[in-house]
Amino acid sequence: MNSVALETRRAALADVVAIPVTPFAPDGSLDQDAHRALLRRLLDGGIRTLTPNGNTGEFYALTPEERRLVTELTVEEAGERAVILVGVGHDVPTAVAAARHARERGAQMVMVHQPVHPYVSQGGWVDYHRAIAESVPELGVVPYVRNARLPGARLAELADACPNVIGVKYAVPDAARFAAFARDAGLGRFVWVAGLAEPYAPSYFSAGATGFTSGLVNVAPAVSLNMIEALRAGDFPAAMKVWEQVRRFEELRAAHGSADNVSVVKEALASLGLCRRDVRPPSRQLPVEQRAEVAAIASGWSV
Amino acid sequence: MNSVALETRRAALADVVAIPVTPFAPDGSLDQDAHRALLRRLLDGGIRTLTPNGNTGEFYALTPEERRLVTELTVEEAGERAVILVGVGHDVPTAVAAARHARERGAQMVMVHQPVHPYVSQGGWVDYHRAIAESVPELGVVPYVRNARLPGARLAELADACPNVIGVKYAVPDAARFAAFARDAGLGRFVWVAGLAEPYAPSYFSAGATGFTSGLVNVAPAVSLNMIEALRAGDFPAAMKVWEQVRRFEELRAAHGSADNVSVVKEALASLGLCRRDVRPPSRQLPVEQRAEVAAIASGWSV
Repeated sequence: MNSVALETRRAALADVVAIPVTPFAPDGSLDQDAHRALLRRLLDGGIRTLTPNGNTGEFYALTPEERRLVTELTVEEAGERAVILVGVGHDVPTAVAAARHARERGAQMVMVHQPVHPYVSQGGWVDYHRAIAESVPELGVVPYVRNARLPGARLAELADACPNVIGVKYAVPDAARFAAFARDAGLGRFVWVAGLAEPYAPSYFSAGATGFTSGLVNVAPAVSLNMIEALRAGDFPAAMKVWEQVRRFEELRAAHGSADNVSVVKEALASLGLCRRDVRPPSRQLPVEQRAEVAAIASGWSV
Repeated sequence: MNSVALETRRAALADVVAIPVTPFAPDGSLDQDAHRALLRRLLDGGIRTLTPNGNTGEFYALTPEERRLVTELTVEEAGERAVILVGVGHDVPTAVAAARHARERGAQMVMVHQPVHPYVSQGGWVDYHRAIAESVPELGVVPYVRNARLPGARLAELADACPNVIGVKYAVPDAARFAAFARDAGLGRFVWVAGLAEPYAPSYFSAGATGFTSGLVNVAPAVSLNMIEALRAGDFPAAMKVWEQVRRFEELRAAHGSADNVSVVKEALASLGLCRRDVRPPSRQLPVEQRAEVAAIASGWSV
């Protein structure tokens, strides 16, 4: 990775990191036309970082073939307009194959999903990410950390072995914990992406984050961009105005252990006529009685 | 409460809200001389808001007589140099008596400790605070909220009945939860005091807090003032420099469910020759093996 590539990738992480949804056709298959149209809408809206195969893309409900297809069509649709950060995970050989496929297709980075294995040791966490990162030394690698117990020193250890680990998506709902982790790992050494989206972006930015992930951006790119613009300017009151604007939507997504995290986003997109509301099990469509509220929010953002 | 008094009190909350320790003599009684000297040290160091009978003052280990004595000597020692926010709690008649005593002695505000009763209903929370607030309409009243389940609307309901409820000490380790609570209660209606001290002050300020409580301030007033100065200037990187400076000290205080929260502060003060390290059960003196580290931190802040 040369220094221009490194800076391009770091800049892409210090931004709104969009997690596109994966729309489905009436027969349940991946709706490629709708998918491309949604990606174009993000790009036209000013989004410059796309994460195919993230959780908002229903990563764990896609087959290996579908995950490859999502990577391919995202890279194609983005062209030179965005940096692509492909979500990879599962067992190490599967993750390595997905990372290599991402590289072959022209993606610049991979995000390694938090291991779903129930028994994660600290040393094993390092080994898992190291095996993936070493398989694609030309790509930027971004671990997705949701485990509050992982010490920051372990990330530094990983990056000592794998200099292509250049950013982190941190997702523990505690800004002081994030501040501690980032400093133990090396605040300036990595790009810190607030991994709990708009609701936690201001508090994470106060402690050193420079990017945030977003699922809401699928619905209203301008809203997410308004927030990052305010945060970059250090204008926290303005960022909190956006926070207030998105609060109810994000609360609906977070309710009941995030049961409807993706369903709410797809419901909003469906209300705008952009894709079907279908999600795959173990998610479910948004209950009928909540649809009007979501549509009203989405409509409010569109004007 | 006239408008000058109101603004004076609001300004006092939008500041470093110091929670002084209560030093003990060798016989276990309250060491009044040491207590006055520590208060003078805070005042000389630029602190303008003092909370006698806070948790760092071992509120729950003091007798009713001692709590009155702490209020009295704090008010006397402060004179015109500080605004006094007296911690009150326990059953309603005890809290009301303490609030009236605070008023008689010249304190301007009371902080109502989170009810320790194990069965707190939302309506009962309002009634409890209302009974106390109505008993001292001339004083500012500041509920101390540690319960993440309390809806912000309940605070608004309380303030509708009691306009002397002018500030809130909020202490849930989640800045997004704080942001939501403050907006539901009325962001501009109350002064929002970050109740988890320096570690959470930056993230709380990003969401609208304008003051923070501190126990560390007993040891190093300038450190806490450096943080609030940075936060007032909107200079979060500078505030995080202070965060880094206090991190280890605050981690020692937070360890093991905050077992040594006060012990660490008193150990630091003892290392500086300012009071004995004694704390009352159910706290305990800091274990011998941790004392040198605390002394080194305190010494570093003193130069």
